[in-house]
Amino acid sequence: MTNKTTKKHLSRFRPVDHAAVAFDGGFWKSWKDTVRTVTIPTQHKRLEEEGFLEVLDFEKPPGPLARPIQPSGLSMQHFFDSDFGKWIEAASYTLKQNPDGKLETQIDAIVEKLEQGQMEDGYLHSWFIRREPENRWTNLRDLHEMYSMGHLLEGAIAYFEATGKRRFLDVMIRAMDHIAATFGREGGKLRGYGAHAEIELALVKLYRVTGEDRFLKLGTYLVEERGQQPSYYDEEARKRGEDPADYVYKTYAYSQAHAPVREQPDVAGHAVRAMYFYCAVADLAYENDDPTLKAVCDRFFDDLTGDKLYVTGGIGPSAENEGFTRPFDLPNESAYAETCAAVSLGFWSHRMAQIDLDARYTDQLETVLFNGALSGISRDGEHYFYENVLESHGQNRRWKWHYCPCCPTNIARFITSLGQYFYTVKDDAVAVHLYGENAADLNVGETFLRLKQSTAYPWEGDIAISLGLEAPSEFTLFLRVPGWCEGAEISVNGAPVDLDTVVSKGYAALKRHWQDGDSIRIHLPMPVERLYAHPAVSANAGRVSLKRGPVVYCVEEADIGIEPQLLRLPRDVALEPRFDGEFLGGAVLLEANARAAEMSGPIYRKKAAKTAEKAITAIPYHLWANREAGGMQVWLAEEV
Amino acid sequence: MTNKTTKKHLSRFRPVDHAAVAFDGGFWKSWKDTVRTVTIPTQHKRLEEEGFLEVLDFEKPPGPLARPIQPSGLSMQHFFDSDFGKWIEAASYTLKQNPDGKLETQIDAIVEKLEQGQMEDGYLHSWFIRREPENRWTNLRDLHEMYSMGHLLEGAIAYFEATGKRRFLDVMIRAMDHIAATFGREGGKLRGYGAHAEIELALVKLYRVTGEDRFLKLGTYLVEERGQQPSYYDEEARKRGEDPADYVYKTYAYSQAHAPVREQPDVAGHAVRAMYFYCAVADLAYENDDPTLKAVCDRFFDDLTGDKLYVTGGIGPSAENEGFTRPFDLPNESAYAETCAAVSLGFWSHRMAQIDLDARYTDQLETVLFNGALSGISRDGEHYFYENVLESHGQNRRWKWHYCPCCPTNIARFITSLGQYFYTVKDDAVAVHLYGENAADLNVGETFLRLKQSTAYPWEGDIAISLGLEAPSEFTLFLRVPGWCEGAEISVNGAPVDLDTVVSKGYAALKRHWQDGDSIRIHLPMPVERLYAHPAVSANAGRVSLKRGPVVYCVEEADIGIEPQLLRLPRDVALEPRFDGEFLGGAVLLEANARAAEMSGPIYRKKAAKTAEKAITAIPYHLWANREAGGMQVWLAEEV
Repeated sequence: MTNKTTKKHLSRFRPVDHAAVAFDGGFWKSWKDTVRTVTIPTQHKRLEEEGFLEVLDFEKPPGPLARPIQPSGLSMQHFFDSDFGKWIEAASYTLKQNPDGKLETQIDAIVEKLEQGQMEDGYLHSWFIRREPENRWTNLRDLHEMYSMGHLLEGAIAYFEATGKRRFLDVMIRAMDHIAATFGREGGKLRGYGAHAEIELALVKLYRVTGEDRFLKLGTYLVEERGQQPSYYDEEARKRGEDPADYVYKTYAYSQAHAPVREQPDVAGHAVRAMYFYCAVADLAYENDDPTLKAVCDRFFDDLTGDKLYVTGGIGPSAENEGFTRPFDLPNESAYAETCAAVSLGFWSHRMAQIDLDARYTDQLETVLFNGALSGISRDGEHYFYENVLESHGQNRRWKWHYCPCCPTNIARFITSLGQYFYTVKDDAVAVHLYGENAADLNVGETFLRLKQSTAYPWEGDIAISLGLEAPSEFTLFLRVPGWCEGAEISVNGAPVDLDTVVSKGYAALKRHWQDGDSIRIHLPMPVERLYAHPAVSANAGRVSLKRGPVVYCVEEADIGIEPQLLRLPRDVALEPRFDGEFLGGAVLLEANARAAEMSGPIYRKKAAKTAEKAITAIPYHLWANREAGGMQVWLAEEV
Repeated sequence: MTNKTTKKHLSRFRPVDHAAVAFDGGFWKSWKDTVRTVTIPTQHKRLEEEGFLEVLDFEKPPGPLARPIQPSGLSMQHFFDSDFGKWIEAASYTLKQNPDGKLETQIDAIVEKLEQGQMEDGYLHSWFIRREPENRWTNLRDLHEMYSMGHLLEGAIAYFEATGKRRFLDVMIRAMDHIAATFGREGGKLRGYGAHAEIELALVKLYRVTGEDRFLKLGTYLVEERGQQPSYYDEEARKRGEDPADYVYKTYAYSQAHAPVREQPDVAGHAVRAMYFYCAVADLAYENDDPTLKAVCDRFFDDLTGDKLYVTGGIGPSAENEGFTRPFDLPNESAYAETCAAVSLGFWSHRMAQIDLDARYTDQLETVLFNGALSGISRDGEHYFYENVLESHGQNRRWKWHYCPCCPTNIARFITSLGQYFYTVKDDAVAVHLYGENAADLNVGETFLRLKQSTAYPWEGDIAISLGLEAPSEFTLFLRVPGWCEGAEISVNGAPVDLDTVVSKGYAALKRHWQDGDSIRIHLPMPVERLYAHPAVSANAGRVSLKRGPVVYCVEEADIGIEPQLLRLPRDVALEPRFDGEFLGGAVLLEANARAAEMSGPIYRKKAAKTAEKAITAIPYHLWANREAGGMQVWLAEEV
């Protein structure tokens, strides 16, 4: 018999404090600076300008709706709480590294209103409290009460961790206790769960911050109850006097509530709901050391990365359900690929790597970070994409604020807490997941480690890592060897490491007595790669995408003067990388002698269009749409 | 000085009576038989089952809405009148060739109710009469009063012509006189016009049937007033207390009402509205012998066929506005390409060829007839497509009836009146536009001509034409040489005609003293053609479509057992036509040794997928989706 109390099933690496990782140069410094100095303040301004914060004026009668009711019965205004919740979270991450009295005051003002508005029993949702308190908790299927409270809770935790102030955290603990008193399998409670997952992962965070089991228990209930039959949503609809068959999205797979999670065969439904939910599933696998839940996650991860993933890391091709469709349905121009979905794929990948140190997860984290998530914010830090298309004819432009502005605060909290994604630790190990200039203060068991990366990554593949230790210490340093890389080289203090013997699941395990001043050099060759799609991706037949290192490229009309759709890239033409320090903060661009088809002739003809030589420049996908409007294409037609 | 009263500007060929053309064999016989014996009766059944005819129970209080109100303020139920109007029209066309007492009784029952419901002043629209008479004529922008009356009028004319019964016609004349009394440029009248064009072309028909100038005058007013500034729709919205800026479709181009027709630069907006409108513009050019209006039509025709046309003749790629977008935006899988739009492109092309005998118009008529319009009805005659996509992964299936069932009756009236599209006449000429087995009784001036085509067209390109004449007669026989055809040959009584000397604008002009028994043989070579799209059609880069004669082909999963998206067609592979008499009533299929990509491997890879030989069968596009569900593709990827 195995001893269940001690047997470890899963490798459990802990996330590190994002604030322990300083980005004082390199690729991420300018992004983090921009988000802190431009994005966070302008987002607060938008929240004010657009009336989001007015929903907290509990003493006033509610004004006219800022957003009309949708066919689903939902108004976007219904989840305004979530937007400032996420903004507080993102702002708090910056606060922890860069104290800012004005910002704290802004957050405190929101917290004060939330506290004033909170109902006596702990319920907290501005819409219902002000507009229809009698209808609270009557429509978990379509409305977003738990979702909004989950985002407020994440904000409260981040603010507590940044400032030590408990007020917001206590408000949200009361709200969580109210939920626990209302929902559960015990007699007298409702067996409900919010349709848009979010609170589940927030509850695991709360458990980790407070150490209180009841929050983990509540999160576990919410994850495991989802999709149980008969459906709570059917029952709830009938209570409202509605026919469950009238559900606007037709299937509860929209909210991953069509079956209990362990029985769900594949990735389905609304992409952000799916990702947030899978994050919580992975968190519970971690906390309960439960390989069966991890296997469920892997089933989803295999499905997602096998046939439902854009090359940029974007996910969820369809606007109709903001989510998944059939395998290999990955249209370029109509790609929905919501910024939030890519960001939350990053969240999930990060969690998967905590329970199983495998680069197949962190490869996706890196992909979204440099491509499908980062594309969601402009270089100036105050314009956004909701959809991240892979082809445009100039109609897709970034906006200052969105009708449903979930994405701006999501990309903000991703970047402001970026450090946590670079490293995870165990008592005897540290794992390096991402490369980029930074210096991290890490605790590896009892050992304090200052790990410094010097590198021009992702523009170059050479990384120098130096270790600062107070005393020599034995631990394993895991270094990710990206899945995109062939011919990686690693040396320690000048001595080459035989990667064949130390690399497992995409990580080189360097176990030794590390000394202060030890240095590691990593060389990741970065030739320009042509990537082809699976032939079942109809949109990409005869097309090729370009990638160098972790960065996916595109061709934008601004650089070539014609619609990139006219280009034909001969298969054998060379693509030359060139660093351009003036290009939108500096980037490696790719140059090639491609061919362009003539813009003439009838719409249908017996011979394919003639082409002529055309010099092209490809730019990193995440930097597109920062200049004048025009066409863009990730998947270029190859010349026959 | 030119004498304006006698100078002829436009070549004016008159349409012929559809009933004078008998299809007793060949391609169209089975389609016409199916539509008469299956489609017309089942459509009446659907109109009953679905409550369409209940809107005429004027003595009863109106029941609950069969279709909810849309964001535009419109319910589909609002134009139910148009659906039975079109059904009566289609049914009447069959009546004229095949008298049917039961069918007449069904139509008379509808007519009786319409007459009973008609308001004293002639107004006739079931929705407003029963539900909100006080609001009639208050929202021409969004609602469909004139549109519905136009379809009823077309139905009334067809029924009058089939049976000689005037009752319905008189009802509709009263309705038209009411409109003329209400709308116009004279003082005291409203300067309105219906947003969905239709009544304009119906009024020209009414003018031709009655000879009454006032109907032509009303039609002319409605065409010329459309888009005049300041906009009537703005004024009307303000009268309703609305802000014109809230218009749900944003631009009046949606209804071709953004500018006066003569100032409109290009094809824009809702595709069916555009086509119906252009039909009326062409009709007015005809009636007024007005080359300036014809030039306007040509501007639209050039634009449409230059950069906004699917290879199938489908038009209007976008579901959002059911219409046109930017040039070369022709996605395959999301193609809207409404059946009604293709049908009405047929109507317009036919009208253009009346004012200018040019095969560039009738080539489009033929294209929609064999492809993008005919695809809208199943081989069994009782299932339909609304959208006619050019690529499917099995999700597109034909339906018995539609939420907005405008298409079934449209394709029905096209096929039931098909004869009129085959020929047009003048006093000294007859033009043969279409080929197919049929016998037509035509009046060429004073001469009675029986023209008989014997042919397996479109499956074969040989057509034998015999002429029956009571006496020898001089006239010009114009024979269309299709634009798709190279190497056409024509002989008269065995003597070859030198086409170089007689062909102009795609028609061979054979002017001679024709004798009874003269015979003509036409040989139109029909090799299988590969057609490439303009390179700016991004969806078709690296792809090829297949066409033989007028018939566009597709590959359907039902024939090849794999998704056609996996196919790669080598450029030099032969495509062999083979007639299969068992295939859905008989058709020429194409066979080839293509290649298929392996359905394996990662979603992104450094080498394009391997392919292996795969025998394929391509079928006529119009016959797809008549068997089990599966993928379909018109534009096949070529192998690099």
